[in-house]
Amino acid sequence: MSFNTFGRLFRFSTWGESHGPTIGALVDGCPPGLSLTAADIQPWLDRRRPGSSRFTTQRREPDAVRILSGTFEHRTTGTPISLIIENVDQRSKDYNQIAGAYRPGHADFAYDSKYGIRDWRGGGRSSARETASRVAAGAVARLVIPEVTIRAYVVEIGGDAIDPASFDDAAIDANPFFCPDAAAAERWAALLDQVRKAGSSVGAVVECVASGVPAGWGAPLYAKLDSELAAAMMSINAVKGVEIGDGFEAARLRGEENADPMRAGPTFLANHAGGIAGGISTGQPVRVRVAFKPTSSILTPTQTIDRGGAETEISTKGRHDPCVGIRGAPVVEAMMALVLADQKLLHRGQCG
Amino acid sequence: MSFNTFGRLFRFSTWGESHGPTIGALVDGCPPGLSLTAADIQPWLDRRRPGSSRFTTQRREPDAVRILSGTFEHRTTGTPISLIIENVDQRSKDYNQIAGAYRPGHADFAYDSKYGIRDWRGGGRSSARETASRVAAGAVARLVIPEVTIRAYVVEIGGDAIDPASFDDAAIDANPFFCPDAAAAERWAALLDQVRKAGSSVGAVVECVASGVPAGWGAPLYAKLDSELAAAMMSINAVKGVEIGDGFEAARLRGEENADPMRAGPTFLANHAGGIAGGISTGQPVRVRVAFKPTSSILTPTQTIDRGGAETEISTKGRHDPCVGIRGAPVVEAMMALVLADQKLLHRGQCG
Amino acid sequence: MSFNTFGRLFRFSTWGESHGPTIGALVDGCPPGLSLTAADIQPWLDRRRPGSSRFTTQRREPDAVRILSGTFEHRTTGTPISLIIENVDQRSKDYNQIAGAYRPGHADFAYDSKYGIRDWRGGGRSSARETASRVAAGAVARLVIPEVTIRAYVVEIGGDAIDPASFDDAAIDANPFFCPDAAAAERWAALLDQVRKAGSSVGAVVECVASGVPAGWGAPLYAKLDSELAAAMMSINAVKGVEIGDGFEAARLRGEENADPMRAGPTFLANHAGGIAGGISTGQPVRVRVAFKPTSSILTPTQTIDRGGAETEISTKGRHDPCVGIRGAPVVEAMMALVLADQKLLHRGQCG
Amino acid sequence: MSFNTFGRLFRFSTWGESHGPTIGALVDGCPPGLSLTAADIQPWLDRRRPGSSRFTTQRREPDAVRILSGTFEHRTTGTPISLIIENVDQRSKDYNQIAGAYRPGHADFAYDSKYGIRDWRGGGRSSARETASRVAAGAVARLVIPEVTIRAYVVEIGGDAIDPASFDDAAIDANPFFCPDAAAAERWAALLDQVRKAGSSVGAVVECVASGVPAGWGAPLYAKLDSELAAAMMSINAVKGVEIGDGFEAARLRGEENADPMRAGPTFLANHAGGIAGGISTGQPVRVRVAFKPTSSILTPTQTIDRGGAETEISTKGRHDPCVGIRGAPVVEAMMALVLADQKLLHRGQCG
Repeated sequence: MSFNTFGRLFRFSTWGESHGPTIGALVDGCPPGLSLTAADIQPWLDRRRPGSSRFTTQRREPDAVRILSGTFEHRTTGTPISLIIENVDQRSKDYNQIAGAYRPGHADFAYDSKYGIRDWRGGGRSSARETASRVAAGAVARLVIPEVTIRAYVVEIGGDAIDPASFDDAAIDANPFFCPDAAAAERWAALLDQVRKAGSSVGAVVECVASGVPAGWGAPLYAKLDSELAAAMMSINAVKGVEIGDGFEAARLRGEENADPMRAGPTFLANHAGGIAGGISTGQPVRVRVAFKPTSSILTPTQTIDRGGAETEISTKGRHDPCVGIRGAPVVEAMMALVLADQKLLHRGQCG
Repeated sequence: MSFNTFGRLFRFSTWGESHGPTIGALVDGCPPGLSLTAADIQPWLDRRRPGSSRFTTQRREPDAVRILSGTFEHRTTGTPISLIIENVDQRSKDYNQIAGAYRPGHADFAYDSKYGIRDWRGGGRSSARETASRVAAGAVARLVIPEVTIRAYVVEIGGDAIDPASFDDAAIDANPFFCPDAAAAERWAALLDQVRKAGSSVGAVVECVASGVPAGWGAPLYAKLDSELAAAMMSINAVKGVEIGDGFEAARLRGEENADPMRAGPTFLANHAGGIAGGISTGQPVRVRVAFKPTSSILTPTQTIDRGGAETEISTKGRHDPCVGIRGAPVVEAMMALVLADQKLLHRGQCG
Repeated sequence: MSFNTFGRLFRFSTWGESHGPTIGALVDGCPPGLSLTAADIQPWLDRRRPGSSRFTTQRREPDAVRILSGTFEHRTTGTPISLIIENVDQRSKDYNQIAGAYRPGHADFAYDSKYGIRDWRGGGRSSARETASRVAAGAVARLVIPEVTIRAYVVEIGGDAIDPASFDDAAIDANPFFCPDAAAAERWAALLDQVRKAGSSVGAVVECVASGVPAGWGAPLYAKLDSELAAAMMSINAVKGVEIGDGFEAARLRGEENADPMRAGPTFLANHAGGIAGGISTGQPVRVRVAFKPTSSILTPTQTIDRGGAETEISTKGRHDPCVGIRGAPVVEAMMALVLADQKLLHRGQCG
Repeated sequence: MSFNTFGRLFRFSTWGESHGPTIGALVDGCPPGLSLTAADIQPWLDRRRPGSSRFTTQRREPDAVRILSGTFEHRTTGTPISLIIENVDQRSKDYNQIAGAYRPGHADFAYDSKYGIRDWRGGGRSSARETASRVAAGAVARLVIPEVTIRAYVVEIGGDAIDPASFDDAAIDANPFFCPDAAAAERWAALLDQVRKAGSSVGAVVECVASGVPAGWGAPLYAKLDSELAAAMMSINAVKGVEIGDGFEAARLRGEENADPMRAGPTFLANHAGGIAGGISTGQPVRVRVAFKPTSSILTPTQTIDRGGAETEISTKGRHDPCVGIRGAPVVEAMMALVLADQKLLHRGQCG
């Protein structure tokens, strides 16, 4: 069953295909009276926009957003906000080959298995183009949680991680990788150039920190804040892993090492938990890490089958990001904002 | 807002506190006509039951399940199935100390921040005792997906991993760790004895594989099979990370290495994707890995504050698992079953 | 698909069959810190309890409620509240006949058509006994909306309506019919005696007014307050019609007659709308009318078929209310409370 | 909290304001492989379109629908279907007066009470213009239930009812009132001319019958087919009452009169129940009646208050239907289709 909606009170739905006329997001449950124009959304879309460096797909999309409903005199009215983004640079013919054969690692075979039909042009609904809709919706969510600052950045590409000691917030927007370590960014540029020229791809890890989240958001047990974040992040294309706080590293610690002792304030002497305990925020920064697999579209011919089941080979031409994780950073930020906005309203609803 | 329900069509809700009279699960949306008695549920509860070895909490709970509704002449009727498990071995006085002070790493502070009140006896609602309800509900879910075989096992404790080459399915139920590597199980016994005597705790990693899942379950985009699994697993107490397929390791691969080439059949030459592409099952085994942090209850005094905000120290006595991840294995299996049963019905609903 | 849950934030699920061991309600999303013991619930159950006069079924059920979770030291904790009511006076043998043949007007044939199996004992899940669970949940809902006073009463039985000019709130609890017109109550007693002795049954109309609902609860468009109330009321057994405000009578008016003019205050000079405009409360009393069909269980033999499809006749013995609408009044009140509690939390969530 | 989505598996959301640039519907959960183009939707919109006779509003809207997503080569793909309808004939200046003062009977005051802001142009979100989106979504729903025939018609205007003995299906589309009784249609024409010239308005009752619904759709207890229909119908603008089968008339019958005896087949000798028992369809025609209040927009000055609370008078100019119930008939049909499509998928999901 197709569920293209996320959230419980602050909810958004996305629609549209990579090579259809338009994509969009419908945001419902937004509090009334918030100042909102397209100018509040556009900068976030611009951060995710393709074609801004040689390290992303060369598809040229202005990603200009229009607000079709839900505001009056530039303020939200509490009714559904319809956001629309035109597709202008489709080149479906690049994709003719994939009409007939399944790209390994892509959704092609799974979609056909489920639906018996798929819009193969540019990946259709399964294209990462959908994430533009999330970023647009996320921009609205940010207005709901002005007390929260969200920052996502790439901490690892192709297995080459940043040096935490070199973390520099100012660096994040100063390179095409959302990389907080200027030296790592230089190494990644060289790596990506090599990967791109080889028609290959690499994976990445994105970290996201939300500061200013008050204690008390989230809820036991199946709407735990970490559970919601895991669902949100794992719904992003190419994501294969999610960690809260120390994540898998915590599984290697002793209880004493993993404790987050408290002092008056309250202040915490550590944040192994990533700002969440028992599914509820503790007031510490909420920290999540997200693993993106390498882009499945590669030039190297790979064994596959066609729609009739016959064996063949495929190499994916089209235009692709050699590392989808890079542009994943703004998407991870958007999903963080969308989860937190929802949790804020839910908490207010139950606890006043 | 408290959401104690999981699932969309095949849904379950859990209720009850660690030291209340009873805990329970309410399963709704179950197909009619399935053969179901308590004997179908009890063996799964017995696998999770505490006190079965020296490596788990010494709380003695028979965990006997009763079916209060939803069946007639031992068959499901399609109406809600109410499952109830009595608590018989509460010792609330062990926990008197935590009435006043917050246990670091536990939900105590977060619950109080949210609700202003909490049942501190044995952790109340945030206790891992709740997972018995999941296992009971999961036993019903298994009946909905007879075509699927689910197997969870512990692959790492305290940083000591199994040797994949020694994987032996028969070993899993032959040691108290659900460990598929007999040699590792011996090492873990020694480790756990040491940890237990020190009043300390360790983390663990659980892997779960579901075989027999047909291609086509799951759905774009916010009900992706991997997204649902991530939410399900992250909702389990003490879980801090979830991976699908190769997970974070995939982020370190090149596209060529991460491809899952296909041959006629269809068969796949690899399964880096963990049986899911584009959020939809591919017909390969669905594979997930789950990180459990070390139990937060340790004897070592840790800095904390009391409810009034004053600084103090706490060491948690009570009865605890030195490694919650061990008994996490049956819980992970249950959540896998619950997600897959739901997705099976959802797929049938939309696609016939 | 079986959906035994109602509500969005303040939610409840019911379970249990007429002749099973127990029935129950699970209330989730309740605000924390509310004073709650069984004594807050029991009086409402007592109002609905069967056997309190000769005009209701002679089944003797104490309907004693127990709270199994969700409170601590007599206050709600924000976690799920499990309510349980034992069935003690089942007499399933009275119903043996309906195991094989379908009672016209009852759910028997429809359940079998859907599920292929049904618990025929006392009507199983489709019995009005389920409404005890609603009343229990509704008692919790009332605590969430102390600003609201809810009053339901029977305004018509078997086509004999009260005289609105004789409306006396004090009369409602002074007769076995929840009738606000003492003279009508006397007429109904005679009517019901005759109906009961004839083994027949009659329908009834229940009106319910909620005072103190502030302006602003409810929401466009598919969670309109009137839409939620309609769903809530139509989910009660034997209900076939719902009106808000003037209801069908409004369809016979001119716009001038149906207007609810406003004066400063604001005050309204009329309330044709029943306290709801555009799906949102106006601050006037919320008024709903609910039509109950006559009990389908009658002694007169009626043509029907058996499970094999063969023609036969059936007359329903068992123990039944000759007019289910009477005990419907407390149920209507409960549903009103449940809808309003949910809407209050929803409004607070979105609009603060 | 704003919930602009209806349905559980087959779901739709609507968005847009009366005088915004566009309105739309987003349909999710649609089965794949259905043939769908705008030509499948347009005829239904044309039936609801304003300005087709002198008895409806003179606003001229082509109501041309575009499909922006969810189909490929004219077939549904199982992904969300975005439908969009441009507003072309807004005249917001007609409504300047209502920016400041509340129209009695309209949503103006309630919206302001809830949100503190509203788009007053043409009624904004609360305008009946939204129902065009429902009709568009309903056209998609019809494709999901080809076995069902849905027919709505007006049975009463201003208290003047049709003669059931004169019911003629062919007449329904032969007059501007969707009236199955040619003689009544003539009377209504005279009545409406008088009402229209007086700047007044009248109410109406719409009946809708769905034939071909198999036994087994719907579900206990809070997704009863009648409960879903009641919610669906009561969510339509100006609706104040809903009846299933005999509705309020059933409350005046004896059990013997209200029985629907069965004979082999199965066939039923009557259908007082309106095709639903215990919340589940019986295989008989599903019959619902819906009461529309008179349009609240009238020329007669009515007492009201302005946004500041000061007393004033208002007479609503703009362009309005003198009887909104007439164009309500296609909307009722659409809602019937949307509910049944959802229930069909739900039933298939649970019961296979």
